[in-house]
Amino acid sequence: MTLGGLLSAPPAIVAAGVDVFSDALRAQGADVHDVDWRPPGFGDPADLAALALDPRRNAANRVAVERIMAAGSQLVDVRPAREVIGLEDRTLLHSGPPLTWETASGPMRGALIGACLFEGWATDVEDAERILAAGEITLDPCHHHRTVGPMAGVTSPSMWMWCLKDPVHGGQAFCNLNEGLGKVLRMGAFNDEVLTRLAWMRDVLGPILQKAVRSMADPLDVKSVLAQMLQMGDEGHNRNRAGSLMTLRELSPSIVAVEGVPSSDIAEVLRFIGGNEHFFLNLGMPTAKLALDAARDVPGSSMLTVMSRNGTEFGIQTAGTGDRWFTAPANTPVGLFLGDYGPDDANPDIGDSAIMETYGVGGFSMAAAPAIVRFVGGTVPDALATTERMYQVTLAENPAMAIPIMGFRGSPTGIDVLKVARTGWLPQINTGMAGRIAGTGQVGAGLVQPPQACFEQALTALAEEARTA
Amino acid sequence: MTLGGLLSAPPAIVAAGVDVFSDALRAQGADVHDVDWRPPGFGDPADLAALALDPRRNAANRVAVERIMAAGSQLVDVRPAREVIGLEDRTLLHSGPPLTWETASGPMRGALIGACLFEGWATDVEDAERILAAGEITLDPCHHHRTVGPMAGVTSPSMWMWCLKDPVHGGQAFCNLNEGLGKVLRMGAFNDEVLTRLAWMRDVLGPILQKAVRSMADPLDVKSVLAQMLQMGDEGHNRNRAGSLMTLRELSPSIVAVEGVPSSDIAEVLRFIGGNEHFFLNLGMPTAKLALDAARDVPGSSMLTVMSRNGTEFGIQTAGTGDRWFTAPANTPVGLFLGDYGPDDANPDIGDSAIMETYGVGGFSMAAAPAIVRFVGGTVPDALATTERMYQVTLAENPAMAIPIMGFRGSPTGIDVLKVARTGWLPQINTGMAGRIAGTGQVGAGLVQPPQACFEQALTALAEEARTA
Repeated sequence: MTLGGLLSAPPAIVAAGVDVFSDALRAQGADVHDVDWRPPGFGDPADLAALALDPRRNAANRVAVERIMAAGSQLVDVRPAREVIGLEDRTLLHSGPPLTWETASGPMRGALIGACLFEGWATDVEDAERILAAGEITLDPCHHHRTVGPMAGVTSPSMWMWCLKDPVHGGQAFCNLNEGLGKVLRMGAFNDEVLTRLAWMRDVLGPILQKAVRSMADPLDVKSVLAQMLQMGDEGHNRNRAGSLMTLRELSPSIVAVEGVPSSDIAEVLRFIGGNEHFFLNLGMPTAKLALDAARDVPGSSMLTVMSRNGTEFGIQTAGTGDRWFTAPANTPVGLFLGDYGPDDANPDIGDSAIMETYGVGGFSMAAAPAIVRFVGGTVPDALATTERMYQVTLAENPAMAIPIMGFRGSPTGIDVLKVARTGWLPQINTGMAGRIAGTGQVGAGLVQPPQACFEQALTALAEEARTA
Repeated sequence: MTLGGLLSAPPAIVAAGVDVFSDALRAQGADVHDVDWRPPGFGDPADLAALALDPRRNAANRVAVERIMAAGSQLVDVRPAREVIGLEDRTLLHSGPPLTWETASGPMRGALIGACLFEGWATDVEDAERILAAGEITLDPCHHHRTVGPMAGVTSPSMWMWCLKDPVHGGQAFCNLNEGLGKVLRMGAFNDEVLTRLAWMRDVLGPILQKAVRSMADPLDVKSVLAQMLQMGDEGHNRNRAGSLMTLRELSPSIVAVEGVPSSDIAEVLRFIGGNEHFFLNLGMPTAKLALDAARDVPGSSMLTVMSRNGTEFGIQTAGTGDRWFTAPANTPVGLFLGDYGPDDANPDIGDSAIMETYGVGGFSMAAAPAIVRFVGGTVPDALATTERMYQVTLAENPAMAIPIMGFRGSPTGIDVLKVARTGWLPQINTGMAGRIAGTGQVGAGLVQPPQACFEQALTALAEEARTA
């Protein structure tokens, strides 16, 4: 058809997605062909509109994300959970949103069993299963106690915890000590190797770390360590190699100076820390928790304050909706497997460690850590593209967390429920994978996203808030 | 002009650079326009041709670069220079090609003065200058003693040295211990602070490191540390942060177990290592030296085995020309300055540390360390482009030294004199900058290239070798 023909002949119309146009044209007798196309986003249009038009939103989100970025993180003490958060006998904390023994997945059950054995509440595995099934052990999310825990996140009264303080907003946050990789409680393992290590951590590691940390002239600035990690190929979730080394460097002179302890214990502590490339993770997580707790309870804000998983469900919270959880069944990560393990061995997504992505590092800053693709899968261009994409769902760039390869651009920070819904880009998390059978331990590491349903619920709740504000 | 016209009309010819074509066309009466254009390379065409046509060259270069890549590096001992290389009284080693007191630059003179004071050969600065000027102190290049030294590289008999071994080819290489940044002997400073530190390193650090290293069940695999550094944002020349941390991690359990030493000394040693982000450099350099010494004396090879600078001259050696130096006046680095220092304060290029680039890391692997541009200047895209460019002047990609951001491509390894001459791309070195006045210390860090004249001389010598082979 020539240009003249196009103008003189009756028009043929192709309408993509928006019914209101094609219906109006069809009513005028036009030849309309509908294409079934939707924008990639999601959410009820009325909710999206209510949230978009909420006059509080921009300022509230600005307040919330600036609190994240302003928060500091100092390591001020190491104490048992019993003391520091008043954790009582026969109470166990776990990762993610609330759950029961009945709904707990394999690795969560394994970690709960192991903790009962470690605390001496049960004599053997069957006994532990019995008291857990009978409801004799109180289960409570870490997040309800200013605490975060990687993977199963199971924290019992005798476990020692890092105690961190935000000198800017005054908050506190806590996390247990990292056991290393492989057969470890947080991955659902509970054999003798696991329990022996936990006892050593309770009897030797914890007390030495407490004395060392208390003797430091200046508290360790954990936020600064995290910032340096992004210059050193770590992203702070599944690569903590440089961070663990810096932690060792900062603590070792004080550890060596601890008195009244055999030098063989000192050497063993240094070897344990030096042999665990994830040792820093349990300091990074409460650093992120401090920042996100500082951003809690900002009416009108559509920014996430929590992303967390208990191995069964994924839960999120937002600054505008307080302590309310929005949950949906957790996805299963896709990635690389250890030894002979494969996709069928992986449990659904588990752990509070997605607090790192909520803070803007981890999967959000994978561009800073291209070597991580050898651990979690994917390619180097994927890692760069992921960070680029996460800028589209976040509110700010955190100048303290600069990513060198992006020309020192700050990490994408402050996940906005509205931006996630509009773009359809779900937050990218990289994560360890626990075996789905209790007792297995780690089977791999990979990439995973939250279920969209969490965000749909949060969007609806935020829209209701907006309408009634 | 239409296509038909182009074929039927007399041709008008534009000839770019190559006279032999335009002369031949002109002789046939053609309309020839010469453009004054040269390929960016250099070198006498007859020499380039002789080298290019040398039938030994490809195989010899393959042998040489494979020796580099095959070489290993183990830390086997720590001993004083007097013992380990038989360094005699009143003898000092220095970086770069041979030099005399008369030709020595400010920082080299400063370091030589400081070493005379440290060894007690002189009572004060004037006395030291007198004995040096009188030729009472023998000066010899580090490289002539299987040794390398950063910056001035001045090594005296009482200084402790890392002793490294190549388990593949059996070679040995040595380097003194790194003093840290700022006012340090290797940067030409010699005040009391410098001498006090050197005395502590002689009396406390060296003996403790010797005991620790000798007690290790397995020798530290320094090559493996270097490989991991490239995954952690270090390039091994001016960023050694991860490497220094890994060294601390590997040594600290053995350091803590050293007996018969006050625990305050142990803590001070850990603090000294932990406070020096360049501590690893003096282990990385002999690792590169081991590999390049393994590639020495391969007739017909046009590959570099040494790039080194004494602060006055830049010198190179090739695998095909043995111990012969090709020297020319050193360039002055361009980069970033500490405090109030500026370009006028910088001494010309100095140090054996360009052995890192000769090995394929440092400036050649800057893509692995984008954060280094904040230390040596330039931009992140420059860093990536530099590594890309260095692939054009090297013989191989070292799979052991993988660069994650380049999709885990191996570092550009084995600098070929012929490729440098053909492309005109001189090797890119990043380097510390010493103050040009003796006693100043470090003034900055930057980027620098060897003088082209070194390569022109090497090319001529290699061509002569080729013709007479």
